[in-house]
Amino acid sequence: MNNKIIIAVDAMGGENSPQKIIDGIDLSLKENTENFFKLYGNKDQLSYLISKKRNIKNFCEIINCEDKIDDEESPLSAAKKNNTTSMWRCLESQKNGESQISLSAGNTGALLVLSRLILKMIDGVEKAALAGLWPNKTGMNLVLDLGANIECNEKNLIDFTYMGAALYKSLYPEINPKVALLNVGLEEIKGNEIIKKAYQYLKETKKGDFEFYGFIEGNHIMDGNVNVIVTDGFTGNIALKTAEGTADFIIKNLKDSLNKNFFSKLSMLFSYNSLKRFKKQLDPRKYNGAIFLGLNGPVVKSHGSTDAMGLYHSIKMCNKIAKGQLVEKIKKNLF
Amino acid sequence: MNNKIIIAVDAMGGENSPQKIIDGIDLSLKENTENFFKLYGNKDQLSYLISKKRNIKNFCEIINCEDKIDDEESPLSAAKKNNTTSMWRCLESQKNGESQISLSAGNTGALLVLSRLILKMIDGVEKAALAGLWPNKTGMNLVLDLGANIECNEKNLIDFTYMGAALYKSLYPEINPKVALLNVGLEEIKGNEIIKKAYQYLKETKKGDFEFYGFIEGNHIMDGNVNVIVTDGFTGNIALKTAEGTADFIIKNLKDSLNKNFFSKLSMLFSYNSLKRFKKQLDPRKYNGAIFLGLNGPVVKSHGSTDAMGLYHSIKMCNKIAKGQLVEKIKKNLF
Repeated sequence: MNNKIIIAVDAMGGENSPQKIIDGIDLSLKENTENFFKLYGNKDQLSYLISKKRNIKNFCEIINCEDKIDDEESPLSAAKKNNTTSMWRCLESQKNGESQISLSAGNTGALLVLSRLILKMIDGVEKAALAGLWPNKTGMNLVLDLGANIECNEKNLIDFTYMGAALYKSLYPEINPKVALLNVGLEEIKGNEIIKKAYQYLKETKKGDFEFYGFIEGNHIMDGNVNVIVTDGFTGNIALKTAEGTADFIIKNLKDSLNKNFFSKLSMLFSYNSLKRFKKQLDPRKYNGAIFLGLNGPVVKSHGSTDAMGLYHSIKMCNKIAKGQLVEKIKKNLF
Repeated sequence: MNNKIIIAVDAMGGENSPQKIIDGIDLSLKENTENFFKLYGNKDQLSYLISKKRNIKNFCEIINCEDKIDDEESPLSAAKKNNTTSMWRCLESQKNGESQISLSAGNTGALLVLSRLILKMIDGVEKAALAGLWPNKTGMNLVLDLGANIECNEKNLIDFTYMGAALYKSLYPEINPKVALLNVGLEEIKGNEIIKKAYQYLKETKKGDFEFYGFIEGNHIMDGNVNVIVTDGFTGNIALKTAEGTADFIIKNLKDSLNKNFFSKLSMLFSYNSLKRFKKQLDPRKYNGAIFLGLNGPVVKSHGSTDAMGLYHSIKMCNKIAKGQLVEKIKKNLF
């Protein structure tokens, strides 16, 4: 276990857990045996599920937890349960140096609050941001904040810039990231006072392992000209969900149009493979996993409703982040 | 001319003007002869273009203007040109009661500033909003503000709600509009202080000719459950552009996927009509025309790069708004 990446997993959070957690680990081990999993949750359930798999026993340790946090529970109620829950114990093991990164598909609000409570913020950083991958024409962007902080000042946006650049570098070590601020126009005079001040600071202050690109508008998020896009949590959340809604609308309408007559239906047969390839490219499981940034240790939140394949991608992300030494990279950018 | 809707047109703004303006009027007159057009611009150019058309002479009056506002000009420079420009004269005619509504495909910033300067704000309204149509599963939403006001307080959002509802009712008199505030969640506790205060006020204050729906998230903008969606200009602009960027990305990728092999190409032939139908449904010219709300008279801004068909749709919108007595409806909702 000496050279292994140790991932602490809250095995009880999210739909169909812990089944999908074990299935996801199984998938990941077929490709990569660098990881070792500390599984926090119900021992009986986990032992049974692991016994059904051929090859994962040696890569897992089960730590029994009597309780778990429900998806609808408030962060306050979650915090009150203290160290009885799988989520708490998972984060605690990371804090104690028993693991390098935490992964949960559970309650986002509770995970954010418990992460702050247990792992604490990096000195000098006031707000933790939620960062996520977003497909673009050439690969993947990283966008933050996706909803953790409804109101942000210029210091927060600047911190998000440094932290986002560090995360991108951990995930894609070969690329020197270009970072942009999301705005309503490209000129320096555009936007609110907060974003203008952040722009000025980032333009004038040359530090950190990235290139400051300036402003970017919503219609260019997916162009692939930048790697990291920074915004406040209100705007980021609405932009992400608007993009999701637009994609759903188009795909649904397209399907309806193609189903309207015989020839179109026939054409579906011919183009089936191409459409499948396209669908695969946009598969949300490929970018499953939002990252909490700003804490003294990385925490990855998998989508609650994803499946084993989504979990597999989150595990892959955990591996890259842990190997990339994210927190050290963030500190290097910040100070 | 007694019962005609009189539309004042800045005939010089936007790409390919005044050609596309005259072509758009020509298209509109083939369907509807309720409108009369006061055309502000270069008399020689306009006379020549009108002489080439068979049936529009009797529906137009040309008012010669020596100057025009360029697309790249600052609002300040535009205002300094005073009443020499086609845009100024167009708005002035509306102010003097010589026309009921103004239409321009020119410089948006200049149009907003001149409109405020000449038409003045409705008493009690502090900020003019930019509203636009946005397709949804059942027809069209109205979304505002799309970028006129980067920072809004709760009073502004409440005004936008009343004004948006009135505009929707002018465009679709048979529907009692449902109005929602764009937010990062559905519960009352979600969002920033400004949006929470606007929500409380609208929930508790029963006035105006609409139904207050509550909050809506970005992924439900296109579901068709509401008719009017209200947000600040920063968020609205980013949401709209993100939706545009997402649509471009998907359509482009889909085309690339379908062009990848022979069978897919063949399938394009079969599905051509269905795809054309879908494209038509999403055609941005169908919702061309943003409306400035909050002024003592309606002003419609056509997209600068649209064509005659886009202009035709803007003219149709002008006709509905003028017949719908928008400003009276706004005042009824407000007071």
